[in-house]
Amino acid sequence: MSNPFFKNHGPFKLKDIYTFLNLNNNKTNKEDEILDIKDLYSAKNNDITFLHSKKYKELASKTHALYCITTENLKNNLPNNCKPIVVENVLLAISNVTSKFYPESIYDNFDYTTVNINESNLKNKVIYGKNVLVGQNVNIGLNCKIGHNTIIEKNVSIGDNCSIGSNTIIRNTFIKNNVKVLDNCVIGKHGFGFFPDKKKNLRYPHIGIVLIEENCEIGCGATIDRGSMSNTIIGKNTYLDNQIHIAHNVKIGENSIIAGQVGIAGSSIIGNNVKIGGQAGISGHLSIGNNVEIGGGSGVIRDIPDNKKVMGYPAKNIREFLRDNKW
Amino acid sequence: MSNPFFKNHGPFKLKDIYTFLNLNNNKTNKEDEILDIKDLYSAKNNDITFLHSKKYKELASKTHALYCITTENLKNNLPNNCKPIVVENVLLAISNVTSKFYPESIYDNFDYTTVNINESNLKNKVIYGKNVLVGQNVNIGLNCKIGHNTIIEKNVSIGDNCSIGSNTIIRNTFIKNNVKVLDNCVIGKHGFGFFPDKKKNLRYPHIGIVLIEENCEIGCGATIDRGSMSNTIIGKNTYLDNQIHIAHNVKIGENSIIAGQVGIAGSSIIGNNVKIGGQAGISGHLSIGNNVEIGGGSGVIRDIPDNKKVMGYPAKNIREFLRDNKW
Amino acid sequence: MSNPFFKNHGPFKLKDIYTFLNLNNNKTNKEDEILDIKDLYSAKNNDITFLHSKKYKELASKTHALYCITTENLKNNLPNNCKPIVVENVLLAISNVTSKFYPESIYDNFDYTTVNINESNLKNKVIYGKNVLVGQNVNIGLNCKIGHNTIIEKNVSIGDNCSIGSNTIIRNTFIKNNVKVLDNCVIGKHGFGFFPDKKKNLRYPHIGIVLIEENCEIGCGATIDRGSMSNTIIGKNTYLDNQIHIAHNVKIGENSIIAGQVGIAGSSIIGNNVKIGGQAGISGHLSIGNNVEIGGGSGVIRDIPDNKKVMGYPAKNIREFLRDNKW
Repeated sequence: MSNPFFKNHGPFKLKDIYTFLNLNNNKTNKEDEILDIKDLYSAKNNDITFLHSKKYKELASKTHALYCITTENLKNNLPNNCKPIVVENVLLAISNVTSKFYPESIYDNFDYTTVNINESNLKNKVIYGKNVLVGQNVNIGLNCKIGHNTIIEKNVSIGDNCSIGSNTIIRNTFIKNNVKVLDNCVIGKHGFGFFPDKKKNLRYPHIGIVLIEENCEIGCGATIDRGSMSNTIIGKNTYLDNQIHIAHNVKIGENSIIAGQVGIAGSSIIGNNVKIGGQAGISGHLSIGNNVEIGGGSGVIRDIPDNKKVMGYPAKNIREFLRDNKW
Repeated sequence: MSNPFFKNHGPFKLKDIYTFLNLNNNKTNKEDEILDIKDLYSAKNNDITFLHSKKYKELASKTHALYCITTENLKNNLPNNCKPIVVENVLLAISNVTSKFYPESIYDNFDYTTVNINESNLKNKVIYGKNVLVGQNVNIGLNCKIGHNTIIEKNVSIGDNCSIGSNTIIRNTFIKNNVKVLDNCVIGKHGFGFFPDKKKNLRYPHIGIVLIEENCEIGCGATIDRGSMSNTIIGKNTYLDNQIHIAHNVKIGENSIIAGQVGIAGSSIIGNNVKIGGQAGISGHLSIGNNVEIGGGSGVIRDIPDNKKVMGYPAKNIREFLRDNKW
Repeated sequence: MSNPFFKNHGPFKLKDIYTFLNLNNNKTNKEDEILDIKDLYSAKNNDITFLHSKKYKELASKTHALYCITTENLKNNLPNNCKPIVVENVLLAISNVTSKFYPESIYDNFDYTTVNINESNLKNKVIYGKNVLVGQNVNIGLNCKIGHNTIIEKNVSIGDNCSIGSNTIIRNTFIKNNVKVLDNCVIGKHGFGFFPDKKKNLRYPHIGIVLIEENCEIGCGATIDRGSMSNTIIGKNTYLDNQIHIAHNVKIGENSIIAGQVGIAGSSIIGNNVKIGGQAGISGHLSIGNNVEIGGGSGVIRDIPDNKKVMGYPAKNIREFLRDNKW
């Protein structure tokens, strides 16, 4: 999950964490040094992690983290090596601490580090159009093409034999070999994640990236947001048609085919060999199995097991949908 | 409702109005001077207004306007100070007269008054990317950022601490403080309003603006059309996700949260603290109350009172929707 | 159907065709010269065509083509002048052969033949913004405007009195007189057509164009894909609102009105005087009659005869929809 792109402003001491969270620290280990903030699975033994739902208690019981931000009710799920930091709102607390480690991950102002590609060391390597801009920490492989007015903002790695269209904006993204991204896309911006507040909503950090695997094609006008605490992933050889929206933390498997104007809400996981018809929508935090077919226009609001064909709003077995909707 | 941006080509005399409308003028006041065209509420005592539906007869009874374009059936709703001009098709007539007062409000060709921002007096005030263009009558506050290739066309006012993304186009728009507009948006173009005609549709004028209040965020790929005879408004601290379409004259309240790919059709009014799930659609001319929650994918075709949760197509009480759609 | 824009790399001899298809050629006419590849209707007597469905057997019986790629089951529908080339997968074979005649029709990398319009011979003819690019084989009529950052890629013909917005990309497109295309559109790219393959999907050629007839208006953020073996057509005086997706081979009639965020899937045919409400979706390969009205949010999955009003998902008679959905 960790983003190689954002600068880690840590380490912080335990007492700093308590100060960030406005907690009283009457513990003895206030000088403990914490190197990074990671999820339960990835955290190493000098890291801090978080547990906000009993759904993850199995994972929590095996974490290697030194500290875990959690609630009074959940803290007993942690192993001995991991000490709880009890708060009322775990997500708000983790957002707060993440923003201290990775302050650059919150806001997505335009990248003013960019230069025209013909002033960069990529100018002899890439075939590029007019007015192409590249930011800091951009790598591009062999035999790539980048269209007019496209902006490869900071923190982008592009493999070999890729074709990026015109008027496209990419940041915080890993693109593997043989990928095509068409025109007018925006890839790698932060997701629609924030804590609502009547006075002024509070954005939370997005330290994930977008990862586009080999042989993918991304249609015109796509928006693919980077992850918050994990990555947004488009699996190998998956094709997206035009005007598709992929929210933060979504993971799509291999060989999937997604038709025009589909939207997939945050944190949903889509299997391999999945076909999704035009304008279908998938709610957030769902799990869609392998070899699933979702009819055009469907609204999926529940998990779907492997090999099912569904259609409707809400989506149900396609045979049932057609039977219930004779003309 | 009046747009400070379009040049008023009036005043016109009453006889001119009759000529525009191809009406016989056997009235005595043909030299009366008419300063402006406004809605029933805003019109002052040298203005012309219009009444096309009995829905507005209450408002009509109190108008200060000197003249009112209306029908034979509706004219008796006007007060003594306001003389009727009777026509068969009020909207066609008002479109005609508006286009005489504000001829620049009909067509939205690209703004050829723009210059590169580094040739303007904003160059030392704003942090800006490459190839940023600004038109005439553009004001930008303190501490603002404007991304690459963005075009701030004529008649735009931006407050302090705003961040505008890259590849975005804005015209005829007021943006207050602390607003973020992300990449690839088009804001302030005329709406989809015209009189169908088999030979060649007739566009009607759009003299409204777009008004985006403090602390809003507008996601990537948004299209927000300016109003025709009133303004399009996004209320304070309201957040829009990616790929959202807001049609002309729509008014959205404060602290609302609108997820990806939502569309709101012309002239609908959305309350405060409203949550709208991804891909939902709201028909035109509806009124959605405060604290309403609309499930993802819903199609709303009726008014919704305060505090309701709805879902479905057509949208109904969410409990009913879930009960009717067990899997 | 034939695209005047792509270079024909033929003629090929019959024996070449057999080699492309990996077929054994024990025929006598291996030196026959084949000039072009066309559909059943358009093919002339030195062309090759294809027949992949019995739906077209009537058309097949009258073709003038010299050869026809087809199946064992369908080959008896051909007239005497047309000799069958029997394959297992007609579409795969035709894709293969088309790619030999028109290799440039498969991939849509950015057009690196473009130059800034002020370096072209259009500079004194067109009113244009900053950073406008034009490719090879571009013709533009009298009194046209082209907005900032717009890219008229190769193979585009634009009539008189047209207005093209900013940040728009057009290729392989014929635009007639008095057409308006607004901002951020992508018109004329290949459609979402390919043969799925677990290792790497195989794109098929798109030798059709986009044809936009007189007096049309195309809203902001539209994507209109060019046809594969036929053209994508927007009929006279048809208006499209913002964020609309028109897939390859779609044909829309005259005087139609299509509201925001509508999507029309591949090869569907829409009649004249059709009204489609916002966010409606039309499945592929459907036929929608004249004077049809489709309610907002509808999902159309069946043909609709002339003069019907439908709504719902799946779309049905609107009266039935409203009766079944009392609130």
